Amino acid sequence: MTAAMYTGERTFTTAVPTLGPPEAGQVQIAVAYTGLCGTDLHIFHGDMDARVATPAVIGHEMSGTIAAIGDGVSGWAVGQPVTVMPTLSCGSCHACRKGNSHICHKLNFIGIDSEGSMQSTWNVPAEVLVALPEGLALDEAALIEPTAVAVHDVRRSGLTASDFVVVIGGGPVGQLIASVALRQGARVVLAEPDPGRRETAKGFGITTVDPREENLVDYVLRETDGAGADVAFEVSGAAAGVSSAVEVLTTRGRLVMVAIHPKPKEIDLHRFFWRELEMFGARLYQREDFEEAVRLVADGAIPARQMISRVVSLEDVEQGFLALESGGAMKVLVDCRAAAS
Amino acid sequence: MTAAMYTGERTFTTAVPTLGPPEAGQVQIAVAYTGLCGTDLHIFHGDMDARVATPAVIGHEMSGTIAAIGDGVSGWAVGQPVTVMPTLSCGSCHACRKGNSHICHKLNFIGIDSEGSMQSTWNVPAEVLVALPEGLALDEAALIEPTAVAVHDVRRSGLTASDFVVVIGGGPVGQLIASVALRQGARVVLAEPDPGRRETAKGFGITTVDPREENLVDYVLRETDGAGADVAFEVSGAAAGVSSAVEVLTTRGRLVMVAIHPKPKEIDLHRFFWRELEMFGARLYQREDFEEAVRLVADGAIPARQMISRVVSLEDVEQGFLALESGGAMKVLVDCRAAAS
Ligand SMILES: [Zn+2]
Ligand SMILES: [Zn+2]
Ligand SMILES: [Zn+2]
Ligand SMILES: [Zn+2]
Repeated sequence: MTAAMYTGERTFTTAVPTLGPPEAGQVQIAVAYTGLCGTDLHIFHGDMDARVATPAVIGHEMSGTIAAIGDGVSGWAVGQPVTVMPTLSCGSCHACRKGNSHICHKLNFIGIDSEGSMQSTWNVPAEVLVALPEGLALDEAALIEPTAVAVHDVRRSGLTASDFVVVIGGGPVGQLIASVALRQGARVVLAEPDPGRRETAKGFGITTVDPREENLVDYVLRETDGAGADVAFEVSGAAAGVSSAVEVLTTRGRLVMVAIHPKPKEIDLHRFFWRELEMFGARLYQREDFEEAVRLVADGAIPARQMISRVVSLEDVEQGFLALESGGAMKVLVDCRAAAS
Repeated sequence: MTAAMYTGERTFTTAVPTLGPPEAGQVQIAVAYTGLCGTDLHIFHGDMDARVATPAVIGHEMSGTIAAIGDGVSGWAVGQPVTVMPTLSCGSCHACRKGNSHICHKLNFIGIDSEGSMQSTWNVPAEVLVALPEGLALDEAALIEPTAVAVHDVRRSGLTASDFVVVIGGGPVGQLIASVALRQGARVVLAEPDPGRRETAKGFGITTVDPREENLVDYVLRETDGAGADVAFEVSGAAAGVSSAVEVLTTRGRLVMVAIHPKPKEIDLHRFFWRELEMFGARLYQREDFEEAVRLVADGAIPARQMISRVVSLEDVEQGFLALESGGAMKVLVDCRAAAS
């Protein structure tokens, strides 16, 4: 087997570790593809070195087929296509006890807190497996995890088909949120200053606005006959995105906070009061979101294939991160198949 | 009849205007009591002169009995005790059309945007009347309007009896929110630095914390076995109140924004994301809140009588405002009864 190892300082090296058979309760996966996301890029940049013990195999957006099955595991077959919902919760913390195990206080996020999928063969606990339908291309299936994020975000918004939705930020998650909302019948506009990302969105059938060219609030008021948006997703991480999201909402409008804002941001609380606005934090996904994401990718509701900008080999993971870093790539996959390395 | 007229510059003068009979669709009320609130104090201070055309009769927290009934009004009887839900909505704006007429974009808030109850006799549209049960003391009934605010705030929080609740700010609205939440079976702590207000709360059976003496977050974590609060009400209007409210919440905790924050405040959006917190703006009340407030005041669930710090005559309205301004008074009523002037 081959693994890409993160060794710190923007460096990945390939190694050929020996991997034992799956332990009891585990399944061994022949990994097909691993997607790179913003969190992986943070790791590449060294921003998460305190959390990631090097050398580390990272990667949590993946697809593959079952290669071997450990003792005590039932319901799965060798050769079956699968993905992994990469979260293991403790079951006993306050979040878990209140039914919010997806944001467990002691969450083991597989691929960050424990070994990830950037390797040709991978042993995982059977409980994290999610079945894939036959016929779904495995490169597209690597988009299921970020799609699950988008499904969760949209579910947190309480979206209805009559809603007008503003998505602020056109990175992969913003594009996926817009696609999920469109699929649910909502009217959607994506605000994104980067022309390449707007072009990508248009290719997905998403209406876009360049907030540097056109005032987003004016645009939305015009499109909604003066009412404002029912839902806004803040996916930009920028202070301007936060204030636009608040300003654009109609009475009782819902703001979903998707982006990570490391520092506190100013919020117009008077408007929250005056219009009875609502804000919902959204993080990761629950099992039902993941299963819905499988369905959406499988039936083509999500432009998974078009989102794949580039596929690199396990030896070229650094190249993949450089493509991501440049901003030009939407989704970069690592081809982890044994034959590919 | 006698009316207290706000003439600007912290001044009220009494006048004896002639009042015609109620017009078609109106009812004439013999006003018993009018409560003074923070908004009235803002008017007294001249902060709302742009909205309030002087000379003005203000007042919107009231009780009285029906004195006369105009043409076309049915269902009401002379002598019947009533209060008024002091909001008139347009019925056609975007808020009204979405079922949020209580925060109508063209709201006529009676007592601010139109003539209020600080007079011995008052003509109002019959649609704003709310019936009072026989036997409810009319001074206590003047507390129904602020109680309706509290009922609405609590309803916006989605409170359940198993919730641990933090109320930040022990003015009248904070005290009422705490009382309503207690009545619904929740565990409640009120954070308030002023010793007099804490003393008042204790008299109402409300547990208090002095956030200057004791770290509120530590206190709540101790009381909740490390979980944090399910619901926080920000009623202080202070930046520190906002940050405490966010910090004190458990996973998926709900923050209700009750206080008016004229300027944007910093919010820890990372915590909103990480814990999937929720924030709800809350303003005024809906009819069901008002009717629930009548029931709560009538059955003694709200310490209405104990909240009345002082009763002044129509001639002494300025004295009432000075008492309120000093911070020493919880609720000041103006006795508007014809016999009293
Ligand atoms: Zn990811
Ligand atoms: Zn847990
Ligand atoms: Zn008031
Ligand atoms: Zn309206």
